[in-house]
Amino acid sequence: MRLTNYTDYSLRVLIFLASKEKTQLSNIKEVADVYGISKNHLMKVTYELGKMGAVETVRGRNGGIRLAKEPGDINIGQIVRHTEDDFNLVECFNPDINQCVITPACGLRHALNEALQAYLKVLDQYTLSDLVTNKATLNRLFANA
Amino acid sequence: MRLTNYTDYSLRVLIFLASKEKTQLSNIKEVADVYGISKNHLMKVTYELGKMGAVETVRGRNGGIRLAKEPGDINIGQIVRHTEDDFNLVECFNPDINQCVITPACGLRHALNEALQAYLKVLDQYTLSDLVTNKATLNRLFANA
Repeated sequence: MRLTNYTDYSLRVLIFLASKEKTQLSNIKEVADVYGISKNHLMKVTYELGKMGAVETVRGRNGGIRLAKEPGDINIGQIVRHTEDDFNLVECFNPDINQCVITPACGLRHALNEALQAYLKVLDQYTLSDLVTNKATLNRLFANA
Repeated sequence: MRLTNYTDYSLRVLIFLASKEKTQLSNIKEVADVYGISKNHLMKVTYELGKMGAVETVRGRNGGIRLAKEPGDINIGQIVRHTEDDFNLVECFNPDINQCVITPACGLRHALNEALQAYLKVLDQYTLSDLVTNKATLNRLFANA
């Protein structure tokens, strides 16, 4: 059971931006360099984070990206819900492709759904600010990357 | 976020066997046919379920497979822990491949790990018998497949 790289990278961009001063602008190349992730991936990720209202882009020669909200107002459960393609833990979670004959009588979906809700409920209790409590160390690690 | 097909198929085999009478022997072809899953996949799955002590194989011309334990003694959390390749939700869960520079100072792993534990804790509360409370309907659906 894994999250997509897309979710991983989205959270990394948010953590990077949250480690900076509120008004400071960063750029995608800088984020790509510190994490060793392709700039192309991060452009998609940043575009989607922008659509979600978590990141804003300032255009122009001195432009860049920064958080659009306080880190304490960016909920991790909400981000993960958006960035994951789906939470189709097993085939019967997706009625469009499900071919499992026992779906109407099987108790598995209920159990897995309850587990999934417990998982997301934990993430709903975290905001971005909880992930960057140690900003000084984060910035040192970024500087040495 | 998805479970592997391997976990899905393992649970399906167990549900099939749990829907039968305790001593009744089934065969892999029969399970493959009702679910429309390749027999090769199910042979691997059944072999691993045997190693886990959940399924037993009776050899010989009239042989077959059946549960090795009562359904109430087969814990779903334990099965999923065994059948999933890993629970490396993001890169830093796997120290062998992790290259994320902020690992020592980042709060993400803690949050995701707490969510994962909540997920598994729910599954630990379920046994195979909870998934097959409706045996009559299950057997009707298998018969019509």
